[in-house]
Amino acid sequence: MQGQNTQRDALFMKAALAQAKRALALKEVPIGCVIVNRDGLIIGRGYNRRNTDKSTLSHAEITAIRRASKVAGDWRLEGCVLYCTLEPCQMCAGAIVQARIDRVVIGALSPKSGCGGTLLNILQNENFNHQVALTSGVMEKESQALLHTFFRELRERNRAEKQARIRAV
Amino acid sequence: MQGQNTQRDALFMKAALAQAKRALALKEVPIGCVIVNRDGLIIGRGYNRRNTDKSTLSHAEITAIRRASKVAGDWRLEGCVLYCTLEPCQMCAGAIVQARIDRVVIGALSPKSGCGGTLLNILQNENFNHQVALTSGVMEKESQALLHTFFRELRERNRAEKQARIRAV
Repeated sequence: MQGQNTQRDALFMKAALAQAKRALALKEVPIGCVIVNRDGLIIGRGYNRRNTDKSTLSHAEITAIRRASKVAGDWRLEGCVLYCTLEPCQMCAGAIVQARIDRVVIGALSPKSGCGGTLLNILQNENFNHQVALTSGVMEKESQALLHTFFRELRERNRAEKQARIRAV
Repeated sequence: MQGQNTQRDALFMKAALAQAKRALALKEVPIGCVIVNRDGLIIGRGYNRRNTDKSTLSHAEITAIRRASKVAGDWRLEGCVLYCTLEPCQMCAGAIVQARIDRVVIGALSPKSGCGGTLLNILQNENFNHQVALTSGVMEKESQALLHTFFRELRERNRAEKQARIRAV
């Protein structure tokens, strides 16, 4: 049973990673998310488009929740599992609790804004009316590799732009 | 100066209360929100439509942030003040931090999901890269009165429905 769950988690995390790659293609921080319902069907997908859309609400998880609610026809996403390549921030962790999602599977942890236990554990706060089951580190290396690629390319772009400015003076 | 701020806060909280009344008209929990920019202009309005839209993301604050970002053309809402009739939940408090809003003015506190200090203080967590200035209790009675009206009407509707079911048997 545990083995089946692990296999299943890796499968859906791959789908979340495919979303993260769409963010990378837009030069956005590569973060992806999918939401899977009781029947094992993906009912919501999302990837980070914060700069492209000029909106804080364009985080991967928020987009996936919006779409999943539309498919489910309900703001309650009970019975659903959310897969995200990076640990959710305070907003996304809050949205997951509000949407009453059963379980969250995380790729890499986020030291800067992680609210699935790193800076704060919003997903499992006993004061709230809902707590979320949590699995971390699923395809962690693949998630981190995407993030490293993004930040390396960002540094290279910044360096090239700086040199272009110096040449223009 | 303090007096001017108090007057200004009451003025904008009235605008947030007007939004809350729109929620009440839809038989939604009456919660409203407005966002004011550096120039003192309202650039985002929102009211709770969670059941109407069947979406967790239809909280008053999330709608106001989405609209304000559209007007500002930026996901960063630095220099803005957010007025909400009820203390923000974990999702909305997180979104406020993510959007880097300067200050939040709250009407009534929320014992069930308040994350502006009641259950948790997401708005002012030192581990995050942004903290929000906070004022509570502005037009608190007016906010609470709207909520009381809603819950009284809800109880009356539930009682009438129950009696109708009994008569139908």
